[in-house]
Amino acid sequence: MAGNTFGEAFKITTFGESHGEAVGVIVDGVTPGIEIDEAYIQQQMDRRKPGQSSVTSPRKEYDVVHILSGMFEGKTTGTPLFVILHNQDMRPDAYSDIQHSFRPGHADFTYLQKYGIRDHRGSGRASGRETAGRVAGGAIARKLLEQRGVQVLAYTQAIGGIECQTFDETVIEQNAVRACDAAAGAEMIRKIEQLASVGDSCGGIVECRIRGVIPGLGEPVFDKLDAELAKAMLSIGAVKGIEFGAGFAAASMLGSEHNDEMSGSGFLSNYSGGIIGGISTGQDIIFRISIKPTSSISVPQQTVNIHGEEQEIRTVGRHDPCICPRIVPVVEAMACLVLEDQYKRQAAMLG
Amino acid sequence: MAGNTFGEAFKITTFGESHGEAVGVIVDGVTPGIEIDEAYIQQQMDRRKPGQSSVTSPRKEYDVVHILSGMFEGKTTGTPLFVILHNQDMRPDAYSDIQHSFRPGHADFTYLQKYGIRDHRGSGRASGRETAGRVAGGAIARKLLEQRGVQVLAYTQAIGGIECQTFDETVIEQNAVRACDAAAGAEMIRKIEQLASVGDSCGGIVECRIRGVIPGLGEPVFDKLDAELAKAMLSIGAVKGIEFGAGFAAASMLGSEHNDEMSGSGFLSNYSGGIIGGISTGQDIIFRISIKPTSSISVPQQTVNIHGEEQEIRTVGRHDPCICPRIVPVVEAMACLVLEDQYKRQAAMLG
Amino acid sequence: MAGNTFGEAFKITTFGESHGEAVGVIVDGVTPGIEIDEAYIQQQMDRRKPGQSSVTSPRKEYDVVHILSGMFEGKTTGTPLFVILHNQDMRPDAYSDIQHSFRPGHADFTYLQKYGIRDHRGSGRASGRETAGRVAGGAIARKLLEQRGVQVLAYTQAIGGIECQTFDETVIEQNAVRACDAAAGAEMIRKIEQLASVGDSCGGIVECRIRGVIPGLGEPVFDKLDAELAKAMLSIGAVKGIEFGAGFAAASMLGSEHNDEMSGSGFLSNYSGGIIGGISTGQDIIFRISIKPTSSISVPQQTVNIHGEEQEIRTVGRHDPCICPRIVPVVEAMACLVLEDQYKRQAAMLG
Amino acid sequence: MAGNTFGEAFKITTFGESHGEAVGVIVDGVTPGIEIDEAYIQQQMDRRKPGQSSVTSPRKEYDVVHILSGMFEGKTTGTPLFVILHNQDMRPDAYSDIQHSFRPGHADFTYLQKYGIRDHRGSGRASGRETAGRVAGGAIARKLLEQRGVQVLAYTQAIGGIECQTFDETVIEQNAVRACDAAAGAEMIRKIEQLASVGDSCGGIVECRIRGVIPGLGEPVFDKLDAELAKAMLSIGAVKGIEFGAGFAAASMLGSEHNDEMSGSGFLSNYSGGIIGGISTGQDIIFRISIKPTSSISVPQQTVNIHGEEQEIRTVGRHDPCICPRIVPVVEAMACLVLEDQYKRQAAMLG
Repeated sequence: MAGNTFGEAFKITTFGESHGEAVGVIVDGVTPGIEIDEAYIQQQMDRRKPGQSSVTSPRKEYDVVHILSGMFEGKTTGTPLFVILHNQDMRPDAYSDIQHSFRPGHADFTYLQKYGIRDHRGSGRASGRETAGRVAGGAIARKLLEQRGVQVLAYTQAIGGIECQTFDETVIEQNAVRACDAAAGAEMIRKIEQLASVGDSCGGIVECRIRGVIPGLGEPVFDKLDAELAKAMLSIGAVKGIEFGAGFAAASMLGSEHNDEMSGSGFLSNYSGGIIGGISTGQDIIFRISIKPTSSISVPQQTVNIHGEEQEIRTVGRHDPCICPRIVPVVEAMACLVLEDQYKRQAAMLG
Repeated sequence: MAGNTFGEAFKITTFGESHGEAVGVIVDGVTPGIEIDEAYIQQQMDRRKPGQSSVTSPRKEYDVVHILSGMFEGKTTGTPLFVILHNQDMRPDAYSDIQHSFRPGHADFTYLQKYGIRDHRGSGRASGRETAGRVAGGAIARKLLEQRGVQVLAYTQAIGGIECQTFDETVIEQNAVRACDAAAGAEMIRKIEQLASVGDSCGGIVECRIRGVIPGLGEPVFDKLDAELAKAMLSIGAVKGIEFGAGFAAASMLGSEHNDEMSGSGFLSNYSGGIIGGISTGQDIIFRISIKPTSSISVPQQTVNIHGEEQEIRTVGRHDPCICPRIVPVVEAMACLVLEDQYKRQAAMLG
Repeated sequence: MAGNTFGEAFKITTFGESHGEAVGVIVDGVTPGIEIDEAYIQQQMDRRKPGQSSVTSPRKEYDVVHILSGMFEGKTTGTPLFVILHNQDMRPDAYSDIQHSFRPGHADFTYLQKYGIRDHRGSGRASGRETAGRVAGGAIARKLLEQRGVQVLAYTQAIGGIECQTFDETVIEQNAVRACDAAAGAEMIRKIEQLASVGDSCGGIVECRIRGVIPGLGEPVFDKLDAELAKAMLSIGAVKGIEFGAGFAAASMLGSEHNDEMSGSGFLSNYSGGIIGGISTGQDIIFRISIKPTSSISVPQQTVNIHGEEQEIRTVGRHDPCICPRIVPVVEAMACLVLEDQYKRQAAMLG
Repeated sequence: MAGNTFGEAFKITTFGESHGEAVGVIVDGVTPGIEIDEAYIQQQMDRRKPGQSSVTSPRKEYDVVHILSGMFEGKTTGTPLFVILHNQDMRPDAYSDIQHSFRPGHADFTYLQKYGIRDHRGSGRASGRETAGRVAGGAIARKLLEQRGVQVLAYTQAIGGIECQTFDETVIEQNAVRACDAAAGAEMIRKIEQLASVGDSCGGIVECRIRGVIPGLGEPVFDKLDAELAKAMLSIGAVKGIEFGAGFAAASMLGSEHNDEMSGSGFLSNYSGGIIGGISTGQDIIFRISIKPTSSISVPQQTVNIHGEEQEIRTVGRHDPCICPRIVPVVEAMACLVLEDQYKRQAAMLG
C-alpha cells in the first residue's frame, strides 16, 4: 500500500533519496520497438537539473542518464526500462545541525510521524530531487506521445505576484524562469534575486497546455482524466492547488457563460479546459497549478526540536528561492505519464 | 483499466445509470465486527437526495438504502458490503429529443467519442445520480472514522459570487444551500431562485474541514494525502479545481509568511491546510473546491447534433440550478473514503 | 487489500453470501457496443445451478439473471455491467445447530480466525454459491472471446479414482458428471450415488482445453498466463492443485523428451500445455485441476466447538457429494476472465 | 498492465536482462525501522548463484548485493528499498548463432510473438537470471517474517524420477541438490552428472513447508492464500504445476478421509496443506511444485528459424542440467513475499 508507483497501463516506480547514492525509475508497460536513446531523456533531465541559472540551486548534479535494462539495439523491448541517475554532489553532513529539529514548511515532522524514522539528509525522499526519476520516466512517455501527435507544454504564469501578460511560446525556454512573457520573466528574475539576497523565497503559478489529444481519453467515474491529472500534480511537492479551464473563476460564472457551445467547426470556447465529464473533448487541455514558496529560507523562524523544545531556526544550504522554473519539466513529465497511461487504458477497453 | 473502483485498502466500486433500474456500490475491505445499520447510511443519502428544497431538482428519488450482503446480525463481516438504491422516478423518454444532440457543457459528446455508444437517458453514468453509490460507500467509511475520532465537514463557501463572511457550523444543515453563514445563505437562495426563473444556473465554492486526523497519513511519493483527495474531488462531476490551505494565494506569498512555524504547543498557523510533504500534520485538513454552474439550462444555446448539423438547444428537465448544496455530502463521502483508505494503508505499512 | 476483485483490464467484483438475499457481480472494463442478453448469461448459470441431476445438491436456485446496469438498447455501453441473482431457497435456520461448531474441512474455523465473526448460514461467503457471480461475469468474457475465435472447454477427467479413457467432446454436456468419456461417466455417477447413500463424498480431476488463443498472451514476469490461470483456479474453493501440459509428469522427463520441437507447420508436441515463458504459444492451452472431496458429509467426524470442547459432528443439508460436474462451468468462467483480461492487457501494451 | 510488479501491500518490481548490465529489485512497502544489512541479503543470493557445485551452471556471477536507497543508519526507512546486482559474466555474443532460431522449450518464439522484438542474449528477461531480483526482495520479506516467527523452508523432493524417502532438515543445505534425504540426494547428483555428460537435462519436484504462520491469512474470494502462492510459484520459469497438502491425491480420496478432523489440541491431520477456504489454519503450509527439465540441451532437436525454415539445433552454453537446486531459494523468496504481503493485508483489514 506504499505509494511509489504511478499509473496503471504505463507505470513508473521511483526510488532514491536526495543525499543517497542514486535516484531513478523503473518504467513498466513501455510499448516495444520504439527507438529512444539516453540523449533524448538527457534533454529533459537538463531542464530539471540544478545550477541552470542564477535563480536555481547551485548544487552540482549533472543527472547523467544511464539506461540499464529494457532496451536492445536501440529499441525498447517491452520489458522494464530502468534509468539510474547517480547522485554526485551529496553533502549529507551539511544537514547534521538540523537532524533533531523540524524546519517549518518541511516534511521533517510529518515523515517522522509517519515512519518513526527520518533520513534528515536533505529531506531524504521528501526532497525535490525525487522528481528526477519522474522526469526520466516522463521522457519515455513523451516519446510515445510525440508519435501520437500530442504536445505537452508547461510554463510559468506568475511568480511572487508578477503575472505574465502575454503568451509567447518561443520565449519560454529562453528565460531563466520559463515565463511565457519575456518582460514579466525579467521582472520575476529580479524579484527572486532580491528575495534570495534576504534569504526569503516565493511561489508562483505554472500553467500547462496539452495539444493534439484525441477526444475520448479518461476513465469515469473515478479515474477521470482531470482526476488523474490532479493527483499527478498534487503529488509534486510544493503544489497546493490545481484548476482546469475556467477553474475557480467558474464558481462565479453562469451556466449560459460557462457552457462551451458547439458549431459545425467545433467548440466555440474552452472554459472546460478540454475535459468534460472527465473525458477529453479534443480541445487543448489547460490547467494551472499553485506553487507554494520554497520552505527552505534563512530568515529566522520559530520551531521545535524532536524533544519538543522551542528554538529558532535558519535553513541554510543550496536551495531554489523559487521552484517554478525547475518544476515546469516535472509538470510536463507527470502530464505525459497520465496521458500515455490513458491512451493505453483506452486501447485496453476497445482492444 | 476501467475506472469504477476507488481506493486500495478500503475500496468502493459503483454501478448504475441515472435512468436505469438502480444505482449502488460494493464496499470491499470493511473492518469486520462493526455495528452499522441502514438508517445510518440513509441519513447521508437523505442529505444528497433531490427534492429537499426549493433550490434542488424536483426529481422524486427517496434513495431507500438496502444492504444485500456483508452484514450478519447487525455487524459487518469483512466480506463485500453491497448497497443497492432502486431508481424510482425514471423518465427515460424525457430525453428522447436530445438523443441525437450534444448539450453544451454535458458529457454527451465525450461519452460518445470514448465509447462509441451513449446512454442518453439523463446522461446515463455521467449524471450526478451516480454519486448516490459514493455517498452510501462513504457512509461506511464515515462510521469507521467516527470510531477513530475523525470528523469530516463540508459546506458551501460561495455561490454565484456571494461569499460567506462568517463560519457558523450550527447553521450549515439549517439552510437550503448548506452555507456556513446564514445571512449569506439566504442571499444565495434568492440568487439561485432568480437564476432558475430565467432558466440559467450558477456555480460556487465548497470548503471541507477535517478534524481529528492523526499525523502521519498519506503515502509518498505519488499517493500523498493531498494527491488522493485531489483525485477524489476532481472525480466528482462539476468540480473544476481544488486548493489546500492557502492554495492559490500561496503563489503570491513569501516563504517567511507561508511556512507554518511551530511552538511547544503546536503549529502557529495552518497555511499548509494540514498536509505537508503529502502527509497529515495533525492539524485540521482544509481544502476548497470550485464547482462549475450546472450545464443543464433552458437558455437557448448553439450546438450540433451527432451528424454535425448546427442547431439551437434548450435543456429542459428537472435539474439543480446550483449543485453546491447537494454536492456537500458527496464531498464529505469522498473525503471519508480517502481517509479510511489511508488509515488502513498506514496500518499495512506498520503491520 | 481485500480480495473480492479479479482482473486488471477486464475486472469482476463479486458479492453475496450463500443464505443472504442475493449474489452477483459487477463487471468493469467491458468492451462497449457488444450485443449480449440475459439469455446468453442464463445459459451458463443453468450449467452451474444446483438440482440439475441426481448427483447435485437438491437446493432449488434458479439463478435468474437480471442485468441492472451497463447495457443500453441491447448493447454494452462500456460502463459497469451489474448482474444480480436473487437467492430463493435460503434456509438460514438449517445451520443453527452448527453455528458454534467447526465442520471438518470447512472454512468455519479459518473465517472466524480471520474476521473474528462468522456468518454460519451455509458457510456465508465461503460457500460454492459465491461462484454464481463468477459464472455471470465469465459469461460476458466468454461472449467477447467468441468474437476473437477463442473456445474454452472444461470437463471431468476423473472422479473417485475412475478416469476417462477417451475424449469425446460431444458427450460432455450429455452426462450428469460432464465426463469426456460416456462410459466412464456412467461409472462415476454410480460411484457418487453409492457414496451419497452412505453420506460420504469424493473428489476428482477437471481438465480445461482452450482453443484459438493467439500466441503472445501473458505478462511476464509475474502476471504470466499460467500464473494468472493458476491463481484463478486455486481461488475456486475445493481446488487443491493445478498442472499445465505434462505437469507433474514433467518432473520425471528428460529435456529431450519434454521440449516441444518445431517444424515448418508448427509444434510437434504440446508438453508445455500451450504456454512457454508464461506466454501463449498459439497451441491449445491445457491444464488439469485437482478437486478435493466435498467436505460436507454425514459420516460422523471428530471436531471441536468454538469453546474448544470436543464433539462429534455430522453435516446434514443439501450438498453435492462430488462437486466436479458443477465446478466445470466455474473453471470455464475463470479461464474466460483470465483470457479476456490478457487480451486487453496485450492491447494496452501495444496501444 | 505489464506484469513486473508482485504484491499489494509488500510489493516488488524487478528489472534486468540476463546479459544486460544489471538485474535488481525495488521493494515498496517495507516496514520502517527494521535492521537489515547487505550481508543478510547476500546469504540468500549465494544460495541462488550459479557455479555453486558440479551440478549448476559454471557462469560466474557473484551477485554482490548493493543497496542504493531505502536505508538510513542501518535501518529501513519505509521508502523504496532498491537492490542492484551488476552482471559480471555476460557473454552476449555467445548467443549470436541462435539469434534467428527458436530453441525448443525456450521462450524465444513466444517473446517474439508478444513483443515483436526479442533480446536473444541469454533469453533476456525470460532467463532464470531474472529471479535474482526476486531473491533479493524475498530476503527483505524473510527478515520481517523472522520477526513474526515464521520460517519458510524449501527443498528438493525428487529429481529425474528419484524420490526422497526420508525428511532430514539438517542435510538440505549440505548436499548439492538440496534434497531432504542425503542418500537420495547423492543418487540425484549422479543422475544429473550422467545426463549432463550426454547433453540432456531433467526435472524434479520441490516441496515447501512454512511454519509458524498465524491462522487467518489470505484474502477471499480471489486473493486466497493458496491462490496467491500458486500465482507466485507458476510465475517462476520452469514450474509446471503446484499442489497443496494432499494435492492431486485428494482427487481420489473420500471426504471422510480428506477432512482434517479437530481435537482439543488441534487438527488431527493436515491433508489441506494448512489452508482451508483460502485462509491459513495455523498448521504448517505445505505445497509441492513440478519443475520441467531445463530446456537448454545439446541433444540435437528439430526447430525452425524466424523465417520458418526448418533446421536442427543444439543449445550449447553454460546451463544447469537440472534447475531444482537453484530454484529452491527462489521458491522460498516468492513464498516469503506472499506471506509478508498477506500479513500486511490482514493488518490493513483490521487496522
